[in-house]
Amino acid sequence: MATISDVAKLARVSTATVSRVINNSAYVEPVTLERVQSAIRELNYQRDARASALAKKTNNTLGLLTGNLADPFFALIAKHVEEVARKHKCQLVVVSGGHDAQREKEGLDFLISQGCEAMVVHAKMLDDATLLRYSAQLPSMVLLNRTIPQISNRSVYIDNRAGAKESVVYLIKQGHRKIACVTSDLPIEDRTERLNGYRDAMAEANITIEPNWIINQNFSEQGGELAGEQLLFQCPEVTAVVTFNDVMAAGLMASLHENNIRVPDDISIIGFDDVLLARYLYPRLTTMHNPIDEMSSYAADLALKIKNTGYVPPSNHRFNASLVERQTVIPFSNKQALKV
Amino acid sequence: MATISDVAKLARVSTATVSRVINNSAYVEPVTLERVQSAIRELNYQRDARASALAKKTNNTLGLLTGNLADPFFALIAKHVEEVARKHKCQLVVVSGGHDAQREKEGLDFLISQGCEAMVVHAKMLDDATLLRYSAQLPSMVLLNRTIPQISNRSVYIDNRAGAKESVVYLIKQGHRKIACVTSDLPIEDRTERLNGYRDAMAEANITIEPNWIINQNFSEQGGELAGEQLLFQCPEVTAVVTFNDVMAAGLMASLHENNIRVPDDISIIGFDDVLLARYLYPRLTTMHNPIDEMSSYAADLALKIKNTGYVPPSNHRFNASLVERQTVIPFSNKQALKV
Repeated sequence: MATISDVAKLARVSTATVSRVINNSAYVEPVTLERVQSAIRELNYQRDARASALAKKTNNTLGLLTGNLADPFFALIAKHVEEVARKHKCQLVVVSGGHDAQREKEGLDFLISQGCEAMVVHAKMLDDATLLRYSAQLPSMVLLNRTIPQISNRSVYIDNRAGAKESVVYLIKQGHRKIACVTSDLPIEDRTERLNGYRDAMAEANITIEPNWIINQNFSEQGGELAGEQLLFQCPEVTAVVTFNDVMAAGLMASLHENNIRVPDDISIIGFDDVLLARYLYPRLTTMHNPIDEMSSYAADLALKIKNTGYVPPSNHRFNASLVERQTVIPFSNKQALKV
Repeated sequence: MATISDVAKLARVSTATVSRVINNSAYVEPVTLERVQSAIRELNYQRDARASALAKKTNNTLGLLTGNLADPFFALIAKHVEEVARKHKCQLVVVSGGHDAQREKEGLDFLISQGCEAMVVHAKMLDDATLLRYSAQLPSMVLLNRTIPQISNRSVYIDNRAGAKESVVYLIKQGHRKIACVTSDLPIEDRTERLNGYRDAMAEANITIEPNWIINQNFSEQGGELAGEQLLFQCPEVTAVVTFNDVMAAGLMASLHENNIRVPDDISIIGFDDVLLARYLYPRLTTMHNPIDEMSSYAADLALKIKNTGYVPPSNHRFNASLVERQTVIPFSNKQALKV
């Protein structure tokens, strides 16, 4: 009977690589994979049934690769993916990529080594090519909040550009023209798309964006606070602000309060995401609702459906943001511009 | 050579139970465990080395059982445990117990089945006896935010009673006497202890607590909002409030704002936990800092240290809350009582 060494010899790889292929425990280059698989067929290599059963013990899992676990946006993703896992009686394995390409990769490798087949992947720093290589080996891997054309049928994403545009159009309709954009300092797709949406709306209204109206900071509460200081110094003329997300809006509002700038009397603000926090800021934050809760459930259901039934999804899973009017925007005519 | 069936026969259990013992893949009653182990010794049963290696593949993991993943308090726990896992180059497996005893138990069984030995367990609904049974089988399991006397050397907890007392003593020193306590409606240890701390401080100051001053609600933002409505109806005479946690304070503040009650001019508020949100409420929330970040890191380090070195910890890991003065408390003399 053929052994693992025989397979390795014929395929001209190490036994470790053969083991990786057999157990699907780490990424293997497609060329190598093909070579190992044909050696297995040629030698009619059979795994030990007990070992095989053991290796399969973790099959009933759903993997989740996410960003920073302490951020309310990612906490919401984790919560909804977990609910789907529970509904399907599978267990959830969570790893955090920490907005870092290397950690995102390690996280994916870990999910594979844990026997996860179905997985929801929120990876912003890994490049398309790397994610495509993983996706080729993992047919039940679904991307959340990102789209790659070749696997658009496994990409669940939001139209960031249209959402951001809608928020700026809303401000313009209220009579605002000097509108700042407080955005992320990370070169992620969401930033580019939302910034494009801001530009689209301004261009349609024939408003020239002054370079000092765009403020880049970390997309956290602290980043929002710094953006507030920067805004008062750099563009005190603006009467409204769109922020990259709600936690930046929270920091921005705290910083404006501290500087005796009234929201919305002196300055109107629109956030993005509609995390739970938004409702509890004072005043309650007007924001673009990001259906990340629905998207997370949808992505998890999709991953499990592909795994369990071999379902091949149609080509698109696009969601749209929608405006939630609360208390942080008033018409321009009701306020006076910030004094310089 | 003895088989798994021989072991099962001698121990008078199913082969599934023997497998559970061998793989340490689920909880087995101590009596049964002992019977299976002596049958293994008697028959000199040897596991297949490959199967054994496979079963051990997930050993380099750290397990975390936590509450609701979307709550900022639990998000903070997940974040800090994850950082320790990363520092030690092990991977984190997270399960959520959802404040439900059955789900907490399923979560623990899953962590065991994933090969986790070191684990940090935040379980509030499972009873002491059940947790003690698990802890006997899992020497590297550390309890977070809970203490059980028999395993106090593996319990990392905060002195909730002293912390809550300190917050009320602070309000009394500022001249407040009519102080409400907005607390949780779940019968968890934290609630009992913090309520006792409130009673301690009031008793020491010879203040009789009116029954209508204690308000029980879900410990969420929504619960805090409902508590605000209830407070205005039920005890409009109070001039200060201690809340079970910061998210309840956030809801309470939103509800008071909406009813044109000014914080702190009309009513002073102290929260508990000091989650990130507290700094971004308006006014910024005065609260008891809960060192849950430190405690989470400490618990994770402890679990890994026990697993890796067999270290037997000394008997106590108690942490203390500390007052963080921000903007939601003013002396009684500076304000007038709420009008009925």
